[in-house]
Amino acid sequence: MNLGVCYFPEHWPRERWETDIEAMAEAGLEYVRMAEFSWAAIEPERGEFDFEWLDEVVDLIGEYDMQAVLCTPTATPPKWLVDEHPEIRQETFDGTTLEFGSRRHYCFNSDAFREETDRIISEMAGRYADNPAVAGWQTDNEFGCHETVRCYCDDCEAAFREWVAEKYNSIEDLNESWGNRFWSQQYNAFDEIDAPGPTPDGHHPARLLEYARFSSDSVVDYNAFQADLLREIDADWFVTHNFMGHFSDLNAFDVSDDLEMVAWDSYPTGFVQEMSPEEPTVDELRAGNPDQLGLNHDLYRSARDRPFWVMEQQPGDINWPAQGTQPADGAMRLWAHHASAHGADGIVYFRWQRCLEGQEQYHAGLRKQDGSPDRGYHDATQAADELAAIGGEDGVDHVDAPVALLFDYDSCWALEEQPHAPDFDYWQLLESFHGALRARGVQVDVVPPTNDLEGYDAVVAPALHLVTDEITTRLEEYVEAGGELLLGPRTGVKDAYNKLRPALQPGPLTDLVGATVEQHDTLPERIETVVSPVDGDDSYGFRTWAEWLEADDADPLFTYEMDGIEDGHTAAVRNSVGDGTVVYCGVWPDADLADELVRPLLARADVDYTERLPDGLRINHRDGRTWVTNFTSDAYRLETGDDTDWLVGDSTIDAFDVAVADDDLSDEFGVEPLE
Amino acid sequence: MNLGVCYFPEHWPRERWETDIEAMAEAGLEYVRMAEFSWAAIEPERGEFDFEWLDEVVDLIGEYDMQAVLCTPTATPPKWLVDEHPEIRQETFDGTTLEFGSRRHYCFNSDAFREETDRIISEMAGRYADNPAVAGWQTDNEFGCHETVRCYCDDCEAAFREWVAEKYNSIEDLNESWGNRFWSQQYNAFDEIDAPGPTPDGHHPARLLEYARFSSDSVVDYNAFQADLLREIDADWFVTHNFMGHFSDLNAFDVSDDLEMVAWDSYPTGFVQEMSPEEPTVDELRAGNPDQLGLNHDLYRSARDRPFWVMEQQPGDINWPAQGTQPADGAMRLWAHHASAHGADGIVYFRWQRCLEGQEQYHAGLRKQDGSPDRGYHDATQAADELAAIGGEDGVDHVDAPVALLFDYDSCWALEEQPHAPDFDYWQLLESFHGALRARGVQVDVVPPTNDLEGYDAVVAPALHLVTDEITTRLEEYVEAGGELLLGPRTGVKDAYNKLRPALQPGPLTDLVGATVEQHDTLPERIETVVSPVDGDDSYGFRTWAEWLEADDADPLFTYEMDGIEDGHTAAVRNSVGDGTVVYCGVWPDADLADELVRPLLARADVDYTERLPDGLRINHRDGRTWVTNFTSDAYRLETGDDTDWLVGDSTIDAFDVAVADDDLSDEFGVEPLE
Amino acid sequence: MNLGVCYFPEHWPRERWETDIEAMAEAGLEYVRMAEFSWAAIEPERGEFDFEWLDEVVDLIGEYDMQAVLCTPTATPPKWLVDEHPEIRQETFDGTTLEFGSRRHYCFNSDAFREETDRIISEMAGRYADNPAVAGWQTDNEFGCHETVRCYCDDCEAAFREWVAEKYNSIEDLNESWGNRFWSQQYNAFDEIDAPGPTPDGHHPARLLEYARFSSDSVVDYNAFQADLLREIDADWFVTHNFMGHFSDLNAFDVSDDLEMVAWDSYPTGFVQEMSPEEPTVDELRAGNPDQLGLNHDLYRSARDRPFWVMEQQPGDINWPAQGTQPADGAMRLWAHHASAHGADGIVYFRWQRCLEGQEQYHAGLRKQDGSPDRGYHDATQAADELAAIGGEDGVDHVDAPVALLFDYDSCWALEEQPHAPDFDYWQLLESFHGALRARGVQVDVVPPTNDLEGYDAVVAPALHLVTDEITTRLEEYVEAGGELLLGPRTGVKDAYNKLRPALQPGPLTDLVGATVEQHDTLPERIETVVSPVDGDDSYGFRTWAEWLEADDADPLFTYEMDGIEDGHTAAVRNSVGDGTVVYCGVWPDADLADELVRPLLARADVDYTERLPDGLRINHRDGRTWVTNFTSDAYRLETGDDTDWLVGDSTIDAFDVAVADDDLSDEFGVEPLE
Ligand SMILES: [Mg+2]
Ligand SMILES: [Mg+2]
Ligand SMILES: [Mg+2]
Ligand SMILES: [Zn+2]
Ligand SMILES: [Zn+2]
Ligand SMILES: [Zn+2]
Repeated sequence: MNLGVCYFPEHWPRERWETDIEAMAEAGLEYVRMAEFSWAAIEPERGEFDFEWLDEVVDLIGEYDMQAVLCTPTATPPKWLVDEHPEIRQETFDGTTLEFGSRRHYCFNSDAFREETDRIISEMAGRYADNPAVAGWQTDNEFGCHETVRCYCDDCEAAFREWVAEKYNSIEDLNESWGNRFWSQQYNAFDEIDAPGPTPDGHHPARLLEYARFSSDSVVDYNAFQADLLREIDADWFVTHNFMGHFSDLNAFDVSDDLEMVAWDSYPTGFVQEMSPEEPTVDELRAGNPDQLGLNHDLYRSARDRPFWVMEQQPGDINWPAQGTQPADGAMRLWAHHASAHGADGIVYFRWQRCLEGQEQYHAGLRKQDGSPDRGYHDATQAADELAAIGGEDGVDHVDAPVALLFDYDSCWALEEQPHAPDFDYWQLLESFHGALRARGVQVDVVPPTNDLEGYDAVVAPALHLVTDEITTRLEEYVEAGGELLLGPRTGVKDAYNKLRPALQPGPLTDLVGATVEQHDTLPERIETVVSPVDGDDSYGFRTWAEWLEADDADPLFTYEMDGIEDGHTAAVRNSVGDGTVVYCGVWPDADLADELVRPLLARADVDYTERLPDGLRINHRDGRTWVTNFTSDAYRLETGDDTDWLVGDSTIDAFDVAVADDDLSDEFGVEPLE
Repeated sequence: MNLGVCYFPEHWPRERWETDIEAMAEAGLEYVRMAEFSWAAIEPERGEFDFEWLDEVVDLIGEYDMQAVLCTPTATPPKWLVDEHPEIRQETFDGTTLEFGSRRHYCFNSDAFREETDRIISEMAGRYADNPAVAGWQTDNEFGCHETVRCYCDDCEAAFREWVAEKYNSIEDLNESWGNRFWSQQYNAFDEIDAPGPTPDGHHPARLLEYARFSSDSVVDYNAFQADLLREIDADWFVTHNFMGHFSDLNAFDVSDDLEMVAWDSYPTGFVQEMSPEEPTVDELRAGNPDQLGLNHDLYRSARDRPFWVMEQQPGDINWPAQGTQPADGAMRLWAHHASAHGADGIVYFRWQRCLEGQEQYHAGLRKQDGSPDRGYHDATQAADELAAIGGEDGVDHVDAPVALLFDYDSCWALEEQPHAPDFDYWQLLESFHGALRARGVQVDVVPPTNDLEGYDAVVAPALHLVTDEITTRLEEYVEAGGELLLGPRTGVKDAYNKLRPALQPGPLTDLVGATVEQHDTLPERIETVVSPVDGDDSYGFRTWAEWLEADDADPLFTYEMDGIEDGHTAAVRNSVGDGTVVYCGVWPDADLADELVRPLLARADVDYTERLPDGLRINHRDGRTWVTNFTSDAYRLETGDDTDWLVGDSTIDAFDVAVADDDLSDEFGVEPLE
Repeated sequence: MNLGVCYFPEHWPRERWETDIEAMAEAGLEYVRMAEFSWAAIEPERGEFDFEWLDEVVDLIGEYDMQAVLCTPTATPPKWLVDEHPEIRQETFDGTTLEFGSRRHYCFNSDAFREETDRIISEMAGRYADNPAVAGWQTDNEFGCHETVRCYCDDCEAAFREWVAEKYNSIEDLNESWGNRFWSQQYNAFDEIDAPGPTPDGHHPARLLEYARFSSDSVVDYNAFQADLLREIDADWFVTHNFMGHFSDLNAFDVSDDLEMVAWDSYPTGFVQEMSPEEPTVDELRAGNPDQLGLNHDLYRSARDRPFWVMEQQPGDINWPAQGTQPADGAMRLWAHHASAHGADGIVYFRWQRCLEGQEQYHAGLRKQDGSPDRGYHDATQAADELAAIGGEDGVDHVDAPVALLFDYDSCWALEEQPHAPDFDYWQLLESFHGALRARGVQVDVVPPTNDLEGYDAVVAPALHLVTDEITTRLEEYVEAGGELLLGPRTGVKDAYNKLRPALQPGPLTDLVGATVEQHDTLPERIETVVSPVDGDDSYGFRTWAEWLEADDADPLFTYEMDGIEDGHTAAVRNSVGDGTVVYCGVWPDADLADELVRPLLARADVDYTERLPDGLRINHRDGRTWVTNFTSDAYRLETGDDTDWLVGDSTIDAFDVAVADDDLSDEFGVEPLE
């Protein structure tokens, strides 16, 4: 495990640097991430570079046997640069130019900014080439933060025109592909195509989807530009980027193709406030939700199928969510173990010390504003000791996931554009299925539908909205060969251009599913929503969305038991195809129903699973070890057999506590509430 | 009854056209509305016209003994046109120019667009002059949709200056009429008058009302321009327009003066979500509210005092409200009968087939995306058979309404500008009175206060806010001659320029009412609101608004029974004038109180009425027939006498069911819940 | 007591002027405020002045032994002026120019408008110099209304650059002071500094605080410009300004330095709707909240430490809050007495008669639109008689407040920028402490922390967020000398530039407090929040914010009794310093806890206090008299001893009633509900 911390030496007097770095080393930290917002410190005026401060800090880091992770400082072009090149600024959908005064105030398609990027990276990376104290680089910082993936400036408009001209054979091809006959939206030339902006009614879904793809591609291209520059200068250091959690606008799989290593920034108490379907519970406010975090861990681990880093780990209270609530005692330690359990190889706390100035004064560090240890510091040192004791081999210890969850950015973008129900949210729907797997102690990879699936015992695709022929073939071959596939609602609705097909849903997957969708329905909370298994009396709830199915080859699994039009219709079917099985579920299941779908799937796929774990208590397997993490304020007794070799903790797990066993606990695993 | 469907042949391959049209004919449909968004299909480049596709479809329609209703395609000027004339685009109140990419992206006062309109209509209408397969034309499509009546561009600003210069003798006259001494808002010349825009505080109510009138007049003028063009080309076809429901910004009475026939677009499950005072019930989510629909049916029927068309009838689930909930089984049939019962002569379903592309993919058609019949198709064919069996004579069968409800756009606009209570809504207040009449099985005309009233047994004016001398005289003469008049709160407050008069409310109506308004009060829900009849003990509720009255000649009818300042004051009065009676009610009545006002009104006016019907179950009389429509999920037994001749259904009416009798059921009519 | 009314003769025909003024005199009114929006009436075209109407009215006022308070009409520059100088208009944060059509459409930093101001004031004031019927002037009207203190136009940007250049020695000094290393926000020259505008993420807190200060200073400077002009013309008349209630953006202390007399505009039923922490109760909707009003009375009285005027007193229902609810019977009389009790020397009702035209038609006057007396008129005449009977000497009768509440605009601005909890509101936090003092019948001065404190027995500083060395010294000296100090949460967090200090909170106050803040926490409602005294079992609630303390010299007073991380930590401490005591409370107390903090404070400070009064019933002492004001719909018996000399009312106080005794009732005072 690589432990580290984010540090801003440029904020502190030179005389503190060595004290700080010595203290980091003593705390068991090995990496120091720096310089992501330091452009003005490095180049206070055009062409006048000041590397002295950074040289000195990098040297000190080396002296204490640590390594620096440096960042390209492109997220914060200085005022003099913006004043020289005001055209680099982003423009919002409604035409507002975003000014200097925070960060991320540049456009990914600006030629001027591309030149500036080249210049600053060449200077900066050139200076530290072959420096053994520099381990690698982070490109920029949190691409897309503050809704900056999608820019609507003139440079972007021009680039979008080029992008479509490259993608389509002709304007007729584009009109046909998008379906521009609708509302007389045909174009006569690529030059007629604008970046979207304010219109009387909503935009064409094909145009919006293409703009989303183009915007994501623009960042991919800009990141590749940075990564290539860095590698040209020194091929030995790693290049990474710190992604964000539950972030839709940027295709992280595509960006990751140009990275050696994937990293992301984990802020558990912020995520539960901003991304949960309901108001967070008190426990969630204090420690976050392990499955919400886990979904991101799994996604970013899968992006390169290797251990990832948490490049910013929440250290205490934070400034950006509505409530700056303090984490529970031990939460920072819990998060470190939980990340490790999900396959992290590095955990870098953000930040070393609470900042005295600027926008993040209400963001804790491992040290308080006066330099004394804060709550996170004690957690971090405990975690460092424990993780060292556990051992493990960096870049090698593997999370072996028997189940793949398919995450499709195209489907996500299309559904965000046309949710058709106020509370339809792609991420939350994925969480429903992911959470059901995690509640059975199962490891999950989160991969795009274009990935190779043959290694997985089971595949779950909660809302594979856009389906191409390629994906169809891939899924058919997977099931034929014995794969177990679980599909969720709104699957197979659209073609690659966000158009309906002239066939009933699930479109090209109809043969595979053995059924068609006869109707879809959106259901506000005040309509009671119930399904029952065809072979039983139990009732299960669902939310937001219902499709009723006409089974052809497939067997009905669940039927609606409701007042009104759904009643008696089929809600889910199972179909045997070749050596495998496909289940199509037409509703957004609540947790009990999701378990009823996932348990038989695991059984058919011969995947080990546990009893159903309490909310907030999770186990993970990684390379022969088992982590138990408790995100609740309740204590539990773990039933694991007598000879369990506990590396951390033991079979009594307290509130917000962790236990790690040197063993693959799974079928034998049980949990009892204490008291 | 004229049944039809909206069709977009330009979206489908030529080889499907005949199949589709044959299927329409088989379904009992006689009209095909087309081409309202087809400008780019007809004129893909300036001056290059392609009518081949439309010719062929019109011919096919003729061959199958149907007729086309064509539309001028002006709602969607193509991209090439917008690029040539960017000045045609609308500008919002806050100065944003609305771009190409949806529809309605043109300004009604653009000279350039007027020229383009002339050009495309001349070409298109010229082509189909004297074509017997073309029955008539719809001008444009849903004028004002997406809040486009009021544009604030330079063309509109110039046109507004001309409009005021024409209306007022001098700038002094304007200043005096508006009351511009307030806050130094005098102008020295018409040229100083701008279109409204962002200001520190709210705008002058007179200026806003005039801008609302000017904006409505701009659409009236543009529609007349289209209608005149069409009639010049062929005097035989009818010209209509498809209005929207509960739509305030456009004076439909004024537009209708230039139409042979009025049509509107009915989307019951959308309206209950967007225009109801409270969250819709589950039944309303599934079938809409019959009185909300009925108010619009009555308004558009009354606009030309003749049968109207529903030009777009909701066919199933729809895309634009928050919830895309499926209608109840039978709802599409129910709506067809309900429209017919309210005086419709035509019902045109929107659309034939679910569209594969563009903004409306989540909008059902009578056919699914694969061409197979959808739920609406079965309903539509059943309704077609039943309506054919019922018979009736188009353009002749009359709804004989004994009661007029006065709808005044000026009052609506003035009250929208100054609601003075967060939940004061003119449409919803009208519904309270209209619904009370409908719950007693009474037919209602919805007419402007400038209409001739002498044919009506009773007149109800829920909030006749702006009152001119002309209206005063009209109402006085009506009552003197024996008319029965019921006035609601906020009546007689303003003069024609949205100024207060130097007299207590109801201003010029004071003599007629025999009382003045001493105070008005706005009442949030947490204040208990109760009135009692002066001669009884019952308590009745009201909402939002209270006026207390000082009776002069009039007799108190209701007094407030409340904690606090209203207590003991008079809430409603009755006054005898000549041979008639006036009741003034100073509160927004709840349903029970509205019934207490309406029942005696009907009795005095000698209008037949039924027992009070359950919410959602309604009866209508039209030309000797009676429709019973059930918008609820409950079944009822209808008590109608033994010899009722049922044309559709019978005395047992199921959930969302219809019964039609060949008889004028009314005083003998009763309803009992089944089970 | 000076009673008056606001009058707009320019809205009414000349023939009514004498009738109106005679009626005012008869009603006991002595002052007529006029002309604040009259620019266009006075100068209908550039250079063409019409003073005839105003001359005549001023003469009439003199004839009836009344006096005019004239206003500079700068709040409403006429259209011709705006068209000549469009550059005077304000620009919003997001770049929108605010147009003509309401009021306050000018920028405080516009040179062009400064010239126009000079011109109109010179003409107007010159005309009335030495006119004995003109008592004084109000500058402009409600500076900052409709969020107009902060303008972002080019003139403001240039003025801001000058302002910072004047304040800071060098750009390096500014960078260092603000902390601009954060996110590369350094500037290389003052000319690089822009007015804030839209940015991807939030702005730098130092830049925002300086813009807030600059904006307030701009108004201060503009007001001084007006006041100086007026005094140059006639040194004898007073200059005042009518401030608003609970208004943050403008430093009223600074503006008041240039005024002889402070006035403010009191709208009780509007304030409870717009500025209360919760939905107002029915009683509050009908009469407002006495402590909310009282906080403003106390602030504006303290601004010049002398009697103030209410320049606009709510006369009845008003137009601008969400609900235009009628005040309770007697409320207008209640407010007049309550203002007098808090130290008002003048009460001017807004307005004489309901206006027939423009934006304020839904605002009552003392007279209805037809000229007949409205409810407020009867209240006002009763209050006039009673206040005359009570006697008192204008400008002399003093409110002797033993306690100072520190109000700090810098802290207010900093906390509005970074509330860090959705419901943290500086004004409401101040009300919690102010209300606790008022519930014990204590008079309170509201003063800035830079004021001399030695005259006060106790000082309360609810959230002294920004603390300078000067303030530190002042507070230390105050306590050393025997002062009693109560500090609230979030005190001592920031330096003068809105930066954290490199020391734990309360920073420079740590020695004084004898404790440090170990952590802060924000607490949404769903977390239970309880503290208990260290020496007792009672439980007390708090809201929103918790700090836990490490006591050094200080003694713990309260500890948290909660599930979770706060439990057992110290919530408040007491420290003895020199001859005085400091209490630091780390939470936002509910009313019971605030009383537990305030009662011992008063006891230690030897301040007389009453039993705890019911919500809404308050007593005030002023110059040997005691006012009891009842803002509730309940009646009470007052226990005051047998020999109380009642000047108004008696010991039975009805709903919304007043009693005034010629005695200093306090320790002997009790209250019992009347059934
Ligand atoms: Mg654009
Ligand atoms: Mg404009
Ligand atoms: Mg600017
Ligand atoms: Zn851009
Ligand atoms: Zn326009
Ligand atoms: Zn300005």
